[in-house]
Amino acid sequence: MSEFRGYAGKSLEFLKINKIHVGDSVKILADLTYLGIIMPRYEHSDDKHLVLKLKSGYNIGLEIEKIEKIEKISSSEKSIEKKEILEKNPALPKILLLSTGGTIASKVDYRTGAVTPVLTAEELNSSVPELSKIANVDAEVLFSEYSENIMPEHWLKIAEKVKKYSTSNYSGIIIAHGTDTMHYTSSFLSFALAGFPIPIALVGSQRSSDRASSDAALNLIGAIKFLVGCKTNGVYIVMHQDENDETIVCHLGTRVRKNHTSKRGAFQTIGDNPAFIIVNDQIQRNMKDEFFKIKEFQPKINLNTKVALVKYHPGYDPNLLGKIIEMNYNGIIFEGTGLGHIGKTMYANVKKANEKGIFLGMTSQCIDGRVRMTVYESGRDLLNLGIISLENMIPEVALVKAMWALGNSKNLEEVKKIMLQNIASEIYD
Amino acid sequence: MSEFRGYAGKSLEFLKINKIHVGDSVKILADLTYLGIIMPRYEHSDDKHLVLKLKSGYNIGLEIEKIEKIEKISSSEKSIEKKEILEKNPALPKILLLSTGGTIASKVDYRTGAVTPVLTAEELNSSVPELSKIANVDAEVLFSEYSENIMPEHWLKIAEKVKKYSTSNYSGIIIAHGTDTMHYTSSFLSFALAGFPIPIALVGSQRSSDRASSDAALNLIGAIKFLVGCKTNGVYIVMHQDENDETIVCHLGTRVRKNHTSKRGAFQTIGDNPAFIIVNDQIQRNMKDEFFKIKEFQPKINLNTKVALVKYHPGYDPNLLGKIIEMNYNGIIFEGTGLGHIGKTMYANVKKANEKGIFLGMTSQCIDGRVRMTVYESGRDLLNLGIISLENMIPEVALVKAMWALGNSKNLEEVKKIMLQNIASEIYD
Repeated sequence: MSEFRGYAGKSLEFLKINKIHVGDSVKILADLTYLGIIMPRYEHSDDKHLVLKLKSGYNIGLEIEKIEKIEKISSSEKSIEKKEILEKNPALPKILLLSTGGTIASKVDYRTGAVTPVLTAEELNSSVPELSKIANVDAEVLFSEYSENIMPEHWLKIAEKVKKYSTSNYSGIIIAHGTDTMHYTSSFLSFALAGFPIPIALVGSQRSSDRASSDAALNLIGAIKFLVGCKTNGVYIVMHQDENDETIVCHLGTRVRKNHTSKRGAFQTIGDNPAFIIVNDQIQRNMKDEFFKIKEFQPKINLNTKVALVKYHPGYDPNLLGKIIEMNYNGIIFEGTGLGHIGKTMYANVKKANEKGIFLGMTSQCIDGRVRMTVYESGRDLLNLGIISLENMIPEVALVKAMWALGNSKNLEEVKKIMLQNIASEIYD
Repeated sequence: MSEFRGYAGKSLEFLKINKIHVGDSVKILADLTYLGIIMPRYEHSDDKHLVLKLKSGYNIGLEIEKIEKIEKISSSEKSIEKKEILEKNPALPKILLLSTGGTIASKVDYRTGAVTPVLTAEELNSSVPELSKIANVDAEVLFSEYSENIMPEHWLKIAEKVKKYSTSNYSGIIIAHGTDTMHYTSSFLSFALAGFPIPIALVGSQRSSDRASSDAALNLIGAIKFLVGCKTNGVYIVMHQDENDETIVCHLGTRVRKNHTSKRGAFQTIGDNPAFIIVNDQIQRNMKDEFFKIKEFQPKINLNTKVALVKYHPGYDPNLLGKIIEMNYNGIIFEGTGLGHIGKTMYANVKKANEKGIFLGMTSQCIDGRVRMTVYESGRDLLNLGIISLENMIPEVALVKAMWALGNSKNLEEVKKIMLQNIASEIYD
């Protein structure tokens, strides 16, 4: 039945009569002539329309009553793309592309109607022929996961893989990654691979690679231009600046967030302009200092995931904090309000957490701006209860850094010191 | 000892010899002549400086060695301001000001060195004499709490108080409130007092009212101009647009967040321009529709605070979700990634929560943009597990709305219906 997925009643009958299946390329004569691929329909759809994906990448609904003629051009099986083997130019710089999955490495599955990760790194590479003019790209698939399924264990695998290339002849490394949690991964790599000698660019896309409207190709091209021409190291996220296809921006991997669910320019540097802006072949550098505050490459690929993120809000039940303490967490990052506050109702359990030797760090749910806990008496109370003010580290980065710091040291005082040490531009002056 | 708070060693000795206490107004002759108030010092300060608050509101440190002469102008007791009784002009519109505390109703306590909530609504009113030219303001103190200590019980008290004025001759109501959780309170009032006939403006300030750099007066004046001239109802947050003192903006109470820890323009409307902009006496309306989608005033002042906010991140321990289920929560708002995703590791416990009849709603930690759970197979999986896609409601608003919806109905299907009904512009078209 998946050949007619989602179609029912009249529309199903129409497809069966015309021997057309979901995924087939067709030519339809109605008010105009349409060329496209028959898309699956979702439940609760009416039975009066067909959905056609046009070459432009957009879907339209066509009323069956108004279709004069439908003709199959090719069936779904034939639309599988063939792999191309690219010729390499030995004069060009070398880039390593590691694929982890996500939209950048996915296509719309015309049978299920959903976007699934299927493109291999080789396919990704060959699907953007422009790449071969600026660099020789070696591609490798590490795994194929949507980024909501990227776990800290995956971070370790990526870091271990990248570490091997610290003395290679690559000019830079691209990590193709789903956008949802890309900034968590970039944070981990920034700390675990502090001082890594060549630049690392995490690249994602907001629309899948096989759609006409995809931003994948431009983001990849921008990233390669950046890696080849930036003349520095560090961990960055490279994406569209906005809906405009001309500008690609490069964010510090430790000061960036996905701030919009769907826009191409979803990623934003918090509290500053992006570190680099790439317009055509020009690379404009806004970053004042170097990304890594540590000069030598000192890989510390360790983690302790027993860190909880507690976003405070009116009505937050202190007993929930109590459960976190009971569950033997080693660190708690508070996403406090404003300058770094949580309600008085929380104090007793914060005290308990402190007495148990749990690392307690304060960030703000405002996201932008610095935590300052000496302005109000409530902030001063929290400092006295053992909470450390984490400056202007954004909450997600503080969480990842705490997992990393606790993975590298069991000594609470040392962990506190690491948390306040600016390692990879996570603290903004 | 609090008379010399924070001073030690040489600086303490210097104060004692000259019989000067913290809080005293003094004249100091050094490289220049300085007039100001002696401020307390914080721990770990050196003992070589005095801190003086200048009339401009800024603090400076003066090296004791370089002070030629220090002279007391008045002691701290004398600096307590006297209350003024304002004359009222019966031709002007009437505004009710309810004070709940926060920076707008606080001053720097020169003895403790911290900002504490102390101004009464009357003082607040009389401290801004311009108010009496545009409206007759009746003031009342409801309580005096920093907003991180405002709990859902306070929301109920504010709503019950406001409800009494639904048929009064006030043109509008101001709620002076701490900024940290102001957007949570504005959300609750928007739902609980849906259809309330006169406009409600929550007003805060980022710098305390007795500081020269305070934004309190301008925010209050802007709010009163807005309430008197807006010709509509609804619940709004009225604050500075940016560092510029000329523009006051008015945000929809259900689509606003504090997005910066310290800037005057910390509040931002998510996904749109502010509803109204007030420049001098001009009120520019950007809001297209009416704030309330319900026309008649239908107060429903109820709450069920057993709602948890779960911000998903890589490494989120599903057992923590398990604890929330065990603790008999009635609702869970997920702050998922991207278009509304959480990792596969969470599925088993999501299923358990759904089977237990817990309301499950999905928002995005991107904050801006719409949750769309039909694009990726993972989103579709979550819909099948019973999670409701909450459109573009921001996470904090979804949390408050769920507390309110669950307070008004024990029927899960009805709660789901309420959550997707646009009541007070919380869902943006």
